[in-house]
Amino acid sequence: MALPLRLEPALIKPRTPAGVLELLPPDQIAFQRMLDTIRRNFERFGFLPVETPVMELTDVLLTKSGGETERQVYFVQSTGALAKGDEGTPEMALRFDLTVPLARYVAEHEHDLAFPFRRYQMQRVYRGERQQRGRFREFYQCDIDVIGKDALSVRFDAELPAVIHSVFSELDIGAFTIQLNNRKLMRGFFEAQGVADAEQQALVLREVDKLDKRGEDYVRETLLGDGCALSPEGVERILQFVKVRSTSHADALVQLDALGEGNDALREGVAELREVLELVRALGVPEAAYALNFSIARGLDYYTGTVYETTLNDYPQIGSICSGGRYENLASHYTKSKLPGVGISIGLTRLFWQLREAGLVSSAQSTVQVLVTQMESAHLPHCLAVANDLRLAGINTEVVMEPAKLAKQFKYADRAGIRFVVVLGEDEIAKGMVTVKDLRREDQFEVSRAELASTLRVELAQAEALASR
Amino acid sequence: MALPLRLEPALIKPRTPAGVLELLPPDQIAFQRMLDTIRRNFERFGFLPVETPVMELTDVLLTKSGGETERQVYFVQSTGALAKGDEGTPEMALRFDLTVPLARYVAEHEHDLAFPFRRYQMQRVYRGERQQRGRFREFYQCDIDVIGKDALSVRFDAELPAVIHSVFSELDIGAFTIQLNNRKLMRGFFEAQGVADAEQQALVLREVDKLDKRGEDYVRETLLGDGCALSPEGVERILQFVKVRSTSHADALVQLDALGEGNDALREGVAELREVLELVRALGVPEAAYALNFSIARGLDYYTGTVYETTLNDYPQIGSICSGGRYENLASHYTKSKLPGVGISIGLTRLFWQLREAGLVSSAQSTVQVLVTQMESAHLPHCLAVANDLRLAGINTEVVMEPAKLAKQFKYADRAGIRFVVVLGEDEIAKGMVTVKDLRREDQFEVSRAELASTLRVELAQAEALASR
Repeated sequence: MALPLRLEPALIKPRTPAGVLELLPPDQIAFQRMLDTIRRNFERFGFLPVETPVMELTDVLLTKSGGETERQVYFVQSTGALAKGDEGTPEMALRFDLTVPLARYVAEHEHDLAFPFRRYQMQRVYRGERQQRGRFREFYQCDIDVIGKDALSVRFDAELPAVIHSVFSELDIGAFTIQLNNRKLMRGFFEAQGVADAEQQALVLREVDKLDKRGEDYVRETLLGDGCALSPEGVERILQFVKVRSTSHADALVQLDALGEGNDALREGVAELREVLELVRALGVPEAAYALNFSIARGLDYYTGTVYETTLNDYPQIGSICSGGRYENLASHYTKSKLPGVGISIGLTRLFWQLREAGLVSSAQSTVQVLVTQMESAHLPHCLAVANDLRLAGINTEVVMEPAKLAKQFKYADRAGIRFVVVLGEDEIAKGMVTVKDLRREDQFEVSRAELASTLRVELAQAEALASR
Repeated sequence: MALPLRLEPALIKPRTPAGVLELLPPDQIAFQRMLDTIRRNFERFGFLPVETPVMELTDVLLTKSGGETERQVYFVQSTGALAKGDEGTPEMALRFDLTVPLARYVAEHEHDLAFPFRRYQMQRVYRGERQQRGRFREFYQCDIDVIGKDALSVRFDAELPAVIHSVFSELDIGAFTIQLNNRKLMRGFFEAQGVADAEQQALVLREVDKLDKRGEDYVRETLLGDGCALSPEGVERILQFVKVRSTSHADALVQLDALGEGNDALREGVAELREVLELVRALGVPEAAYALNFSIARGLDYYTGTVYETTLNDYPQIGSICSGGRYENLASHYTKSKLPGVGISIGLTRLFWQLREAGLVSSAQSTVQVLVTQMESAHLPHCLAVANDLRLAGINTEVVMEPAKLAKQFKYADRAGIRFVVVLGEDEIAKGMVTVKDLRREDQFEVSRAELASTLRVELAQAEALASR
């Protein structure tokens, strides 16, 4: 039996852990464009950037004991700690959202921040989710929050729908509706129906949340059951209430009027929603983009006033693409200061994945705007000089570094989504000219090297202006 | 003894793990501007974005057994795995650089990528470094690499100095020098001095690397010692060789000529450096920005051709701010395909920290460009409408949401680094005018609301054009 002369080391199969979304460059470009658009709009509304470390100290991160969140946490251990066989909970863990890090950040830097503190944060978070299609263990959250010290006017609650409108208009993924509700209004209404304590309200709201999935009859049955202790009339009033959707700005005001005088909580909730609606309009948000929806509850033990959800009109099955609300106190685990806030979050990784599934992600256009071709090795210095001119004019330019057949170079540009191809052969170099091929318009023109950069800048600016209309 | 009536939960001290750099918003803005500048320049040279998950499978990440790198790795465990008390090495670990993830990515997606594959990646990496001032356990790396299939022309080695030049010119952190060397040239030279095998060369190079710190006499003594087996003449030739620094493009060519015919390796290295120098010049890099430096070696068992280091002329103590080189085969652990490449890396977190220590980071200017003040609650809808105009024109605008004394609002803008303040009082609202205060020029003017956005756009564009000169 012949033995192999040389033992090759076995290859390791290159692969990523389950539950992460890794993209090829065309999709990564599309994803990065979405991130840029979101950031640009967050900044347009005066929010300031914050980044926090991916690892937090375990005792700081897991202030609430137990619960679903803790079960999904990833812990981090250095090689040293692992080698020592340290027992117990590791010292560090990966953040599972951006809210706990924000609370820690604001409490830690309280005396260096100006309040109301307006921050945005766009980073990845980590959750040990069950393995499932469309569920991610690593995903981007894009959050904005306004944090007040001691108090924060409800007026800030009106800015967030304006940000949401600005972001999703520019993302250009179809018509959407920002749905508004108010937890005080809900509490007041439910109390008036005899659903007095918070636990019972939570029970009813969890049932109401099944309306879309299980249908009205199913929910009616459950609400009439023993657990809720509701009268048939009470159940009907609740079902009427949670079905309220306003159809215009004026209709929203009518719906609020229709709730009547009610109790203190209801009146306060109505007054807050009125103010929010008025200012949302003053901020220029078109009335087709927002609506009251009395079924929106969000995190039951967290939000206390305004709550938001956003849905795509043509893709309701995607669910909420941007949610949030008002909370009483951000950082009670870390500081005695009272820090009320209001915020929203976009789960971009999941949204991107869903949009791509729905065929709504365009990944046809490269970040590279111009390809400078090369016909002969001797031309390379000329090609590089042309590329230098273009880059100095801010145009993203790739140079073919080894000569090849022109047809092959064109094919490459076309596949890669590069719009303009610059050709310079012997004749053109002698004349100080280049030929530009526009692959989108299937057109070509000659231009002097001196005018090449400014000509392409105009073309690219026009294309961008067209695209952003 | 009276017992407290209510037990308040103890507060947890908000703090981050050791070895991370968390920034307040003004510094975060400065940091983000550096990231943006680097990305813009990477894209300008035709590099495509890639992001990889922060967690890799342990067997994929740690292909090389043992070594310094493995000792510094952070392992990741889900709550479930921890609870089960799983023994042995955890399934996942945090990336410690962007090179191993790139190798895995290229091998995994080999058939979906176009080669030469030009990618950039700007993400955080994790190392369990010893705790020390200026050492980070979480830090940004900004990498670009060109990966060829089977072969990759040395011409690509010339693009990287052009990228480095473009990035650091625009970062505007002072004069810098891109230092070039070639491992083949070094190998050829050392072989000619009788330092034949790789291990011995490594030994000599490690000593040579101490020249700046320990001085020439110290290094001479060591090289004359038993371990190196060098003749006194050999040692002097080596010391002369590693002191070579070219002073201009022409001088660089003279220095290469001066090496003479030598052996194959030397000739090959000289030819490669010549070609790189010629194309670097063709790419428009000014000759003051690059130089030969025959002492640069970089990762001894990794790089095989061109190597780069970049230093700030006025801050040599910072060390190399951007390094890299040519390697034979990126992904031999994952694929049989031969994937040679060339790349560079900027360790941005450390660089930022050092620049800030040296007082070279300007964090005076907010992302917010305009603050719209509010004198009375009744004016708020007007303030919001003005802000809407500005935002639609792409101007980052914050609105003061609660009325306050104007002086206080101005002070806030000044401290926050917001340049323009818009004031609209009763009179101005009636006339459809606003007053704009330019806090930088300490100047003010009246303008109609219809013309406000376009006026400020011009002002801001001028300021930007001035700043980028």
